[in-house]
Order: sequence, then C-alpha cells, then structure tokens
Amino acid sequence: MPELRKDPITGRWVIISTDRSKRPSDFLRESATPKGTPFCPFCPGNESKTPPEILAYRPGQGVRDTTGWTLRVIPNKFPVLGIEGDLDRQADGMFDKMNGIGAHEVLIETPDHSATLATMPVKAVEELLWAFRDRILDLKQDRRFKYILVFKNHGAIAGASLEHPHSQLIALPILPKQVVEELEGAKRYFANKERCIYCDILRQEIDARVRVVAENPDFVALAPYAPRYPFETWILPRRHESAFENSQSHLYENLARMLRSILTRAYHVLEDPAYNMVIHSSPIQDNTNDYYHWHLELMPRLTKIAGFEWGTGFYINPTPPEEAAQFLREADEEMHT
Amino acid sequence: MPELRKDPITGRWVIISTDRSKRPSDFLRESATPKGTPFCPFCPGNESKTPPEILAYRPGQGVRDTTGWTLRVIPNKFPVLGIEGDLDRQADGMFDKMNGIGAHEVLIETPDHSATLATMPVKAVEELLWAFRDRILDLKQDRRFKYILVFKNHGAIAGASLEHPHSQLIALPILPKQVVEELEGAKRYFANKERCIYCDILRQEIDARVRVVAENPDFVALAPYAPRYPFETWILPRRHESAFENSQSHLYENLARMLRSILTRAYHVLEDPAYNMVIHSSPIQDNTNDYYHWHLELMPRLTKIAGFEWGTGFYINPTPPEEAAQFLREADEEMHT
Repeated sequence: MPELRKDPITGRWVIISTDRSKRPSDFLRESATPKGTPFCPFCPGNESKTPPEILAYRPGQGVRDTTGWTLRVIPNKFPVLGIEGDLDRQADGMFDKMNGIGAHEVLIETPDHSATLATMPVKAVEELLWAFRDRILDLKQDRRFKYILVFKNHGAIAGASLEHPHSQLIALPILPKQVVEELEGAKRYFANKERCIYCDILRQEIDARVRVVAENPDFVALAPYAPRYPFETWILPRRHESAFENSQSHLYENLARMLRSILTRAYHVLEDPAYNMVIHSSPIQDNTNDYYHWHLELMPRLTKIAGFEWGTGFYINPTPPEEAAQFLREADEEMHT
Repeated sequence: MPELRKDPITGRWVIISTDRSKRPSDFLRESATPKGTPFCPFCPGNESKTPPEILAYRPGQGVRDTTGWTLRVIPNKFPVLGIEGDLDRQADGMFDKMNGIGAHEVLIETPDHSATLATMPVKAVEELLWAFRDRILDLKQDRRFKYILVFKNHGAIAGASLEHPHSQLIALPILPKQVVEELEGAKRYFANKERCIYCDILRQEIDARVRVVAENPDFVALAPYAPRYPFETWILPRRHESAFENSQSHLYENLARMLRSILTRAYHVLEDPAYNMVIHSSPIQDNTNDYYHWHLELMPRLTKIAGFEWGTGFYINPTPPEEAAQFLREADEEMHT
C-alpha cells in the first residue's frame, strides 16, 4: 500500500510508493559527467569571451579578465532580467506587472572544465560558498531587490546549458512563490508553537536516526519526510539562523565538508546524477527572524519523465526517503578517498 | 526589457522574456506522433491483457472486455494508489500521513492506435468528455475521496508511457496543493469583490481581444496573462460554474469543439507537440460555489529543459502570451479541413 505524506512546512501531499520502491539501479540514468566541448567560454584563456568579471578569486593576484583565477563571477551573457532602471510596478487592467529588473550572474566554480563539486577539494567547494556570500552581501545593498536565488544545475537534463562547472544567482524584485509558501508555513507554525519548525524537525530526525544521511558539528543532512523527488536531500545548519549570508566562518567550512560529502555519495550511488541545488534563505531585506531556518536542497534528476507533476503540482516519489537515506548513509564507507 | 507578471489567482510571479521571444520554430521539438509499437495492450483484440474494464462505450452493444468499443475505461495496471481499505490518517511524530487510498483509471480514447485528439472527429472528443463525467459522478459517491484529478499526457516527454491515445484519472483522499492554492486565491478575491475572479478575467480578456485564441457560444480559449509555459492555453466556460461534472449537455459538445480546435491549431503550429492537459474543478464533495470557475489547462512541452523551474518554482517563459495567442488564432485559417 502506497503512503500519502504531508510536508509539514508547505502542506504539500506527496505519494510515496512503497510497493514498487525504486533502488538506485532502477532509474534510467544519464550520467552528467562532462564529455568535453570544442570551445568553452568558461575555460581559462577565454576570459575575453565572457562579459567582464564582477568578482574573481586569484590566489597569485593577477589581472582582471585574464587567467590565474580559481573562481570567477560574471554577468550571465543571456540574463533573464536586466540590471538597469528603476522598478516600475504597474496595473495592467486587473493584472499586475513590473519591468524585469534584476541581476543574473554566473559563478564559474573552477578553471578545470571536467571537475565536479563531488570530486573537487573541499577547499574549492568552500570557496564557492564564500563567493555566494560575497555576491549576496553586495547585491543586498541594492534596495530594488527582495530575494536572491542561488542555485546550480548540474548536467544537461537538470538544465545546465554549458558543461563547465558553474552555479547561478538571480536577484529578484519580488519573492518567488515557493519562498512565500515556505515563509508562510514556517510563520504559521511559529505563531502556534513559538518554535522554528525546522529546529523541531531537526530534533525529531536526529532522535529517530531513520532519515538522517550525515552529521557534522554544524550541519545535518537528511531525506525530508515528504520528498518530491527520489533521493531529495536537505542540508540544514544545526543552529537556528534565518539567512545563509549571516553565518559565521566555521559554518562555511563545515557546509563545504557536508555538501562535498553528500555530493560524493550521490556521485557514487547514483553514478554522477544530474541534479539541481538551491539555497533556501530568508528575503534579503528582512532582519534575522525566529521562524525561518535557511537550508540547502539537493534534487537529483533520476526520473526523466515528470508529466504528471508538471501539470498537477502533485508528486509521486518511487523511493521512500528512509531507503534513500540508507543508501546514501552506507555509501560513506566506500568513498573515503 | 523582460517583464515580471503576476498570476492574479495564485499570486505566482513569472518572467516573460520579450527580448529573446521564441516563435514556434525556435523550440527544440520532438513530435509526439506515435511511431507504432510491437505490442499495445490498449489496442482492440488485447482486452484480456488489461485489468477488466470499468466502463466502455460500445455502439453495437457487445461483450465486456472484447472488441467493439469506441472508448474503454480500465483500472491502471500499475496504480499509484490502492482502491481497497479505509482511510487511516495518522500522526508520525510531528508529521502527518495516511494510507494511499485512491482510484487510478485509464481512459482509452479510441481503438485507433495512431489517432490523436487533434485529428479525431469532434464526436470522439465529446465522448471522452462524457466518459470523464461518468467516471467523476461514479467516484464522487465514494466519500473517501476529496478530489478527482483528470489529466492527459501526450507524448513521451510529457510523461506518456504508452503511445495509444489515453487519458487518466486519479481520485484522491486529499486536495493537491495546486488545487488548494487556486481555491484560496479565488476565495480571497471573492471575499474582497463578491465576484468570481475567472469571470472578471474572461470579461476583461474578451474586451481586450489580445490574449483570446478562440470563442464559441459556451467557451473561450485564452493565453493566460502570466503563463508558466510557452503556448499555455486555458479553456474556460463563459457561464460561471464551479465543477466540470455539473455542466449541461450542450457544454460537453461545445467543449469538445473548442478543445479539438485548440489541439488542432497546436498540432499545426507546433508540429504535434507533447502536452499535458489538466481539468481544474472544485473538490467533489463541495457544493456548487460562487468563487471557483472550472476550466481546462493545456501545457505544450516545448522546452525540454526545466532545471530552473524544477528547483525554484519560479518560471521563465520565453514566449509572451500575446504572441502565442496570435500564432494559435491565425492558425485557424490553415486548418479548416
């Protein structure tokens, strides 16, 4: 008998099919490992082929828009939003619109075209997290923006149009619906219990030890109770904090360790799966709050087809999170390299 | 400059990119036209290979589970929910779950393996709508169910695992999140204005004639103001009614005409695109209400990649609805066959 489970934050019901539970080897997989491309604008030496850099980490100093960087941030050449202009909110009959003001940046994670976060040194992963923070702190000063979406698409089926390892950042003058839903869910819970719902989930999951994938002094990785996708994994800071960019230094180090560890496990268990990674954090103009708990969500793309979900917003997940967590937990031994 | 637009019902913001607006020929298309399969369990003569039929339309009478049908409804051989048992809602620590009770049926739309709704006779499309109604009325009597999801996936990339033309129906003991959002949005609007938001949208769109694709005495097809997907099209009844199954006979006839017309236009303009179709209707145990307006949503799957949307719930649509509506409107002339 399948099970219907409710996500306690958003109230979303999902079907967890237990009968025909899918193990890692049951998925139609398409490895996201780079195959190499004739020309890559993100590779060192091609700096002039991208828009001028916004930020770069160059251990040996060096000149802007030349080689020598370990991480490089550039404006997206085909931005979905434009950076210039004032916000102009307008009615359009009974509808609402505004001009598409925003920032759309690309973070080139490494000079190495064929590297992946799962196999990079932990230090390089940490550098990426610091770059997220640096860019958020800078963009936060722009009062036109309300939210900064930080995400990574790994592999073509996850939406990556270039192979070279990169993440993206979009600063928005509005709050995306999914963010509003989580904030409202967390607020409702707080109004009722005077506790953060994510803190409560963490406490219960750490006690139960069924859906926990890994722990370190600052972070816990777990399979959520009502995951939309097989092997969906959340990484949450143990200590309550509403915004990613407010974290203290040691948190970035331990988040890098945890993220690298989870991605390495997924890399081995699911054979370099395509995935989407999204940082969930409070709106940038809000002060620290007691009800929302920033975290990182990882969604491997194992099922090629999502027809049902696409039209209905109703998810069927063929792998119970308890089993997914176990697969990833046990992968630990194999991957101590 | 791209535009940010807000869906007035759900409050969802989408980015409409106007700069790099995509015309029908700009999409990577994969025609959903059936290629033929060595064995099809839905083809006439193979009735014994499916679970026993629940309903069939047989113009010349005939015997159950044999040939002679024009439309046949069967339980899904691999149902996502089980039909037997009582609802058992339970707490699971701080979480909520229930056993996966529900019905999952397949409606085989025609005996002809290579037919499509876009090219079938209008009468056959109407028969399908009557079958939806017949099944809803039957399942509505089961008090365990709260919602019936009626949908069609056309083409492999839209999630169809079998080529033979078919629709699906899932009866659920809960309300899917997307349904709750629409109901709440419509309720909020009604509380404020004492009018149905869909009725207001219809009035404004019919006046403006910019996003209307087609009209007939009972239905209007339009590109919504803030569509998530290129060429997303909604078909709404002109007269307010909250539930699909409450409609009078002439509505099914005119809906069949409208649906066939829109699908034929899309078939020509977008070259038999894969698509998802979903009927949006009030929860089955509710009485008729003044705030929700049932309708049908059509989402062609033209963009293979939806990485960004997958992780963030934030949509970027490269085709403004005004242009999509015009393409479909102008297709009219070419397709009078």
